[in-house]
Amino acid sequence: MNDHELWMQRAIDEARKGIGRTSPNPPVGAVIVRNGKELGAGWHRAAGKPHAEREAIAQVKKLHGEDALKGATIFVTLEPCSTQGRTPACTAGVIEAGISKVVYAATDPNPAHAGRADEVLRAHGIEVVAGVLAKDAERVIRPFSKVQRCGLPWVMLKTAMSLDGRLTRPPGESMWLTGPQARAEVQRLRSAVDAMVTSGETVRRDRPRLDLREPELLEGRLQPWRVVLTDQPESLPKDAPLFSDGHSDRTLIMPRTDPEAALRRLVREFGVNSVMVECGGRLAGLLLDRGLIDELAVFMAPMLTGGAVTALGGDGFPDGLELEELHYQRFGPDVMMRGVIKS
Amino acid sequence: MNDHELWMQRAIDEARKGIGRTSPNPPVGAVIVRNGKELGAGWHRAAGKPHAEREAIAQVKKLHGEDALKGATIFVTLEPCSTQGRTPACTAGVIEAGISKVVYAATDPNPAHAGRADEVLRAHGIEVVAGVLAKDAERVIRPFSKVQRCGLPWVMLKTAMSLDGRLTRPPGESMWLTGPQARAEVQRLRSAVDAMVTSGETVRRDRPRLDLREPELLEGRLQPWRVVLTDQPESLPKDAPLFSDGHSDRTLIMPRTDPEAALRRLVREFGVNSVMVECGGRLAGLLLDRGLIDELAVFMAPMLTGGAVTALGGDGFPDGLELEELHYQRFGPDVMMRGVIKS
Repeated sequence: MNDHELWMQRAIDEARKGIGRTSPNPPVGAVIVRNGKELGAGWHRAAGKPHAEREAIAQVKKLHGEDALKGATIFVTLEPCSTQGRTPACTAGVIEAGISKVVYAATDPNPAHAGRADEVLRAHGIEVVAGVLAKDAERVIRPFSKVQRCGLPWVMLKTAMSLDGRLTRPPGESMWLTGPQARAEVQRLRSAVDAMVTSGETVRRDRPRLDLREPELLEGRLQPWRVVLTDQPESLPKDAPLFSDGHSDRTLIMPRTDPEAALRRLVREFGVNSVMVECGGRLAGLLLDRGLIDELAVFMAPMLTGGAVTALGGDGFPDGLELEELHYQRFGPDVMMRGVIKS
Repeated sequence: MNDHELWMQRAIDEARKGIGRTSPNPPVGAVIVRNGKELGAGWHRAAGKPHAEREAIAQVKKLHGEDALKGATIFVTLEPCSTQGRTPACTAGVIEAGISKVVYAATDPNPAHAGRADEVLRAHGIEVVAGVLAKDAERVIRPFSKVQRCGLPWVMLKTAMSLDGRLTRPPGESMWLTGPQARAEVQRLRSAVDAMVTSGETVRRDRPRLDLREPELLEGRLQPWRVVLTDQPESLPKDAPLFSDGHSDRTLIMPRTDPEAALRRLVREFGVNSVMVECGGRLAGLLLDRGLIDELAVFMAPMLTGGAVTALGGDGFPDGLELEELHYQRFGPDVMMRGVIKS
């Protein structure tokens, strides 16, 4: 890694703090550097709050005074916005501050805006370097980019299965296939998304909570939306946690017939960029068959259960679906295999 | 680890060289030490060949002369035999050599013989220490011990599945779910057993070879027995590799109706201690249901295939089967989960 990459990595680490907290905006991080020293950093905390560049500039002013910004370089994970939105354009903030160089990673995924910051900044004599660690930074804003591209959220399917590919333990046993370490990881995965999706069948059978339980995971964000896809809303048990707990106002019911329409509605009406699906094999198979799943996290438990319910149903994939960006991690006795479906 | 354990570990490493080569005998290793220095080592190479103790003694004589053995200590992974078998009793060899101390790990699994060496050796003034790293050493002779205990071989079921618990890729695709690194590991697993077991269905559909292909894996051993369990031997394709390749004399056909009887016959008539099963989900499920599987190796491929064939069939396990001695290993894009079924 050269210096640009090292500082950009630092900015990406800042950006990651915003994952799960910024929708419909993307998570963005920024670091301000002068003479090889970090003067300040910041990340976008929530929609309507200052952008990462403004956060970093404010921190430098507070720590070192306004003059420290003159001639400094700002590293930012996403091309600075050049138009007034809910907050003033970041390019204006950078120019005002007297920053002399902007290094950014990902280009604005909205093609109408892409590269526009470069012009604005250069017109003010500011040096611009684009594309540093672009791939890593793009990964952080992937849900936002997918929404920009096609109006659909980024969807991760989380499933747990035994070594014989079954979803459930036999009746009468604990509903948990996996151990506490794996379940803690599921909490972390949930904290990275805006909405949880499940099926009416799962609500009736397992009465899941689909919420965040650790105060630190909830810091700076609301509970995720909890979306039940069902065509028989009257069959849902009214006393299930989703409808009776302290955040039942975050539960939505949408028709299962057209899951794509439900996902689009989550984007449009609820500002959702990222979704995690936790459900039985049938809905999971349906979503896979329709091409609505982007990423998979499979927790495998060292157990054989037999029985009827396979972890993933559906029609099957004539050509097979392969995964890339593979990542394996062990959680106690279980192992998680995570990957992105090749498109 | 204390000194005894360190030397025993060295003897276990020697023993492991014999895995897959010694049946119906167990793999055994021995190291001879004097004044904290290794004088020689040996392992049992095959039934009818000298036992590990004799191999080690011969090596010391060759390297250092007969006198070097006087007052030496021998570390051996299994209690030395005290009765004349195909070769003379090892206790006699140790006594003759003038060795003054015997440290062994596992006790003879045959209850009629267990501990007998201690008496014989002590009667000749030899110090005996038993049980050093016994658990590790017992693992190496587990197939032999199971045969001694109940007349059945140690059976490992190897299966490969996609992330949706399916066994096969869709028709027309490669028969291999897993990549070359995983297949190389399957070769190593095969080289540790005496016999491969499969179903008539698998022979008809996949025409597997079930053999060892690397000369180094075949060194000092024959190809494994290849056993087809079927009740319709007439339906087997005569031109399949099992019946037409260079070692078709190592292929056996046995009735599928009573797989336990087949396994017992492999022990009794063919000197088999260890078996690996590679077959479709139905036979695998049957063997699991009957409690004939001791160990499982599941290779998981980062792929979704859908389709009808689940990796493991069978009736299901009312209480679930859990695995212990869990071991995960990644092979290229695939991951292997290996464990022993809790009894």
